Amino acid sequence: MRILFRIAYDGTGYCGFQSQKNGLAIQDVIGGALCDLFGEPVKTMSASRTDAGVHAEGNVLVFDTETKIRPEKLAFAVNARLPEDIRIVRSVRVPDDFHPRFQSTIKTYEYRIINRPHPDPLTRNTEMHYYYPLDEAKMDEAARSIIGEHDFLSFCAAGFSSKTTVRRIYDARVTRSGDRITFSVTGSGFLYNMVRILAGTLIEIGAGKYPPEEMKRILEARDRSKAGPTAVPKGLVLMEIRYPDYEGTL
Amino acid sequence: MRILFRIAYDGTGYCGFQSQKNGLAIQDVIGGALCDLFGEPVKTMSASRTDAGVHAEGNVLVFDTETKIRPEKLAFAVNARLPEDIRIVRSVRVPDDFHPRFQSTIKTYEYRIINRPHPDPLTRNTEMHYYYPLDEAKMDEAARSIIGEHDFLSFCAAGFSSKTTVRRIYDARVTRSGDRITFSVTGSGFLYNMVRILAGTLIEIGAGKYPPEEMKRILEARDRSKAGPTAVPKGLVLMEIRYPDYEGTL
Repeated sequence: MRILFRIAYDGTGYCGFQSQKNGLAIQDVIGGALCDLFGEPVKTMSASRTDAGVHAEGNVLVFDTETKIRPEKLAFAVNARLPEDIRIVRSVRVPDDFHPRFQSTIKTYEYRIINRPHPDPLTRNTEMHYYYPLDEAKMDEAARSIIGEHDFLSFCAAGFSSKTTVRRIYDARVTRSGDRITFSVTGSGFLYNMVRILAGTLIEIGAGKYPPEEMKRILEARDRSKAGPTAVPKGLVLMEIRYPDYEGTL
Repeated sequence: MRILFRIAYDGTGYCGFQSQKNGLAIQDVIGGALCDLFGEPVKTMSASRTDAGVHAEGNVLVFDTETKIRPEKLAFAVNARLPEDIRIVRSVRVPDDFHPRFQSTIKTYEYRIINRPHPDPLTRNTEMHYYYPLDEAKMDEAARSIIGEHDFLSFCAAGFSSKTTVRRIYDARVTRSGDRITFSVTGSGFLYNMVRILAGTLIEIGAGKYPPEEMKRILEARDRSKAGPTAVPKGLVLMEIRYPDYEGTL
């Protein structure tokens, strides 16, 4: 049977989600736990290869197994073999032809900023610290201007290979709660470093470097050099991945 | 001049706030940073000696110095000498006779619980995980019954030496946001382990072990054995310490 894991992790200690030549990846650690549980190597497929230092509340991993353990109990069995910074938060059976990447998905990311003179030690690994005051209303206005289907070439890191740089954004907003600013964005897919470049650009707008309307002009320029810097990885959290074709069954 | 630091820290890696024979204390680390900055040992006085594993968003530390550095700049100078899990978040000058403990204070604590099948790796060090469903409305009802001036002997760990076990609670409440339950309590002072024993008792009420009205009976019994267990330290955060006699000046 094919099993889908929803996975949460603190990416601080890892070289990213996907196995790499140098460094320990989250996929390696989960693979090791599955191998220990089943007594043989297990091939896993993920929905999103998050970068080093990036976190998740709900990345998706899929694999096949002949185990007799019930799907919802598998999460406990695997968690017992994982370090505290990685947790399987949900485990369900999916159709045998389900693939986490090659079908329509809706992904939601958050980029978290603490905006005050000094960072907060309690959340130091999961938010970016920004000293100067940020105007969240301007950031929100700019964020909303990317909603819709656009070519996001301006917000894509060099070296990205994809058939198209057009993506559909369903929702994008910036909210503040006390000293904390959150940029939330939901879309059909994201280019390499796209959310972090969007966040870096929104921060420049919030700091008053250019007005909110500039966001639209940057988008239309289709030129990476027009956008802001790539914001640090630790502020980024992959919140959720939804599969519209399987809505209600996963 | 006398300086007051508001301090935030992740208590995970320390034996508590106050210097001890075994293990590294938060006070030791800050003392070392001050000694490095000023070139001589500095005697510090704290408002609250939090236990090993307990966190703070706003503990208070006071010391005297002849430095020429302006109070608000001192935070930056000391932070540059501190590890990431300890931050001075505010620094102000206070009257020379100000003592952080021997005067009227209003302290606010939070006890944080994540109530779902699996813990969250992103917040694993700053919240307690509780698997079984908790009824936050019952917990809130029980929490509110401790508001007022009472003898909290039932909620005090053995070995505590104080003239009186009577304390005044100004506010106590339990709220839920998704899978997260927060017990917030504000009072004139707290006995040893008091907030954690209150939290442990509220969890038993939330789990249905006894009804909310039992909280009042436990309080009146003046008997530690009637209350619930001491909840684990990592869920506890000292949020704020206010000084009513200096309100508006600190």
